Amino acid sequence: MTTKNTQILFAKRPTGWVDETTFETVETDLPELADGQVLVRNIYLSVDPYMRGRMNDTKSYVDGFQLGQPLQGGAVGQIAQSRNNRFQEGQYVTGMLGWESYSVSSGKDLRVVDPAHGPLSYYLGVLGMPGLTAYVGLLDVGRAKDGDTVFVSAASGAVGSVVGQIAKIKGCRAVGSAGGDDKVAYLTDELGYDAAFNYKTADSLGRALKETCPDGIDVYFENVGGAMLDAVLPRMRFQGRIALCGMISQYNLERPEPINNLIAMLVSRSTIQGFIVSDHWDRLPAFIADMSGWLRDGKVKYREDVMEGLENTPDAFIRMLSGKNFGKQLVKIGEE
Amino acid sequence: MTTKNTQILFAKRPTGWVDETTFETVETDLPELADGQVLVRNIYLSVDPYMRGRMNDTKSYVDGFQLGQPLQGGAVGQIAQSRNNRFQEGQYVTGMLGWESYSVSSGKDLRVVDPAHGPLSYYLGVLGMPGLTAYVGLLDVGRAKDGDTVFVSAASGAVGSVVGQIAKIKGCRAVGSAGGDDKVAYLTDELGYDAAFNYKTADSLGRALKETCPDGIDVYFENVGGAMLDAVLPRMRFQGRIALCGMISQYNLERPEPINNLIAMLVSRSTIQGFIVSDHWDRLPAFIADMSGWLRDGKVKYREDVMEGLENTPDAFIRMLSGKNFGKQLVKIGEE
Repeated sequence: MTTKNTQILFAKRPTGWVDETTFETVETDLPELADGQVLVRNIYLSVDPYMRGRMNDTKSYVDGFQLGQPLQGGAVGQIAQSRNNRFQEGQYVTGMLGWESYSVSSGKDLRVVDPAHGPLSYYLGVLGMPGLTAYVGLLDVGRAKDGDTVFVSAASGAVGSVVGQIAKIKGCRAVGSAGGDDKVAYLTDELGYDAAFNYKTADSLGRALKETCPDGIDVYFENVGGAMLDAVLPRMRFQGRIALCGMISQYNLERPEPINNLIAMLVSRSTIQGFIVSDHWDRLPAFIADMSGWLRDGKVKYREDVMEGLENTPDAFIRMLSGKNFGKQLVKIGEE
Repeated sequence: MTTKNTQILFAKRPTGWVDETTFETVETDLPELADGQVLVRNIYLSVDPYMRGRMNDTKSYVDGFQLGQPLQGGAVGQIAQSRNNRFQEGQYVTGMLGWESYSVSSGKDLRVVDPAHGPLSYYLGVLGMPGLTAYVGLLDVGRAKDGDTVFVSAASGAVGSVVGQIAKIKGCRAVGSAGGDDKVAYLTDELGYDAAFNYKTADSLGRALKETCPDGIDVYFENVGGAMLDAVLPRMRFQGRIALCGMISQYNLERPEPINNLIAMLVSRSTIQGFIVSDHWDRLPAFIADMSGWLRDGKVKYREDVMEGLENTPDAFIRMLSGKNFGKQLVKIGEE
């Protein structure tokens, strides 16, 4: 049994873009477990956009990261040692854990996962928080129904790629935007999106939306914010719904991009609703039942972008924030 | 029986602020009535913010005004002549009629009103479209409930003054903003608002909101848009609702003011919903029943700002757009 741990600490609060000075790697001694605690050997770490918000010193929907402490995120690992009778050594678990080789946990937020139901890493994506986010945002917040046109930004990402596929299953027309021709081809050729465009090379977002959504948009699944939201607002149909999941384009800006077209909501009588997946855990059983069925039947495809090595986690995080990943960004830091 | 009519035509499309060149007054001959038509002698004309939108050459929720035709708005009048068996001479009616001494109408959109239930002019305000707007926006769109903090902008206006009073009846804390110390005093001293501030003299809208809504805002009844909306967004409480009724501060701008704080909706999980009263006519019977009772019991007070003379209708409209009116702006153009 090892007694050493490698940890990546939150060293410096970023203003604007995150860089390597945000992080510091340290070697520490593992503490003895107290009664009720477990030691988790971490296998996969998830890096996600919302973490950028936790780096700010402002009120947000999750607590901010503490300077000098390990960064934290979704992870899958294996119980290496247990003084908690809910967990046995060898079990696989998922939960919010540190950017570190081993995590000590009270077990409170850990959930046992069965590797027979899908690859372990899927519990950080299509069978985990990003998948549930897509499900709740599209069906509960966006109220997508048969015949709707659903537009998704960051459509090849961990959440967006699932949104479009659920939209197709529900009889909608699915349209997506992404930041690369390879991603756009992936949306239409592999995920079954009806249309897609590259927002980085489009002459005008408004024109690209008009061409790909000629009858307007019933549901906009909003992942990016800024100029894309402004271009979508005038294209919303009567009583359209915007499910506001994230604004990744804005997180690294010291001042957000302005939105000019909210007044269009008076014309379309549209709704914008912010939501957070953690308010919707009650939907987890229905989601797992639906999604595991869709994966089994080949109705939902899923792609991962895996870096190797704990020391590369900061790079993976920065890569994901700048949109260079293709598929759900993960870091594999231990053997399964 | 007169055969002459005075009409105010839509002469020139404004860019930015409306001025006298937008309008032209003409004398015309009244046509003979066709079968099914009525002639209405107009008594009160209503001037309302949404009319500014009808002057633009863009898609909106009501058809644009036609150049060379009389302007149009809510009006109360009396049937002067009838070739429609639904209407008798002498009856009072309300509907969308022209800025003119007499209007010829098919009767399709006219509704007979009983002067015994309240002053005729009230059908253009507290018992009419502005009152129904307040009722639907606060209760259906805003879903205000006992204990909520309700913030209303343009709170002394035709809609806002009713919103705050219904909020109080429903057990909410009502807070308003208005553009003048006399209006602010009116809100708290006469309408029963719990707190109010003058947005024109406040050092900071954010600070004024913090002081008057120390626990945050559950429902924002949005009449003005722009800087006020931006200041409200970070103060919305968990799952707060913004009922987007209008954006009067924006209508005369060639470019709207930018909104920077939408990202706060992710923290509060708030909703913004645009709505138009004309989608909610099904609520008219419930509204009339409630409101006439509240007026009878003295629970709702109502103030009018009446100019006299058809020729002053453009001035009344411009006055209302610049917020110089105090109470519902009307023009009395004929004897009751």
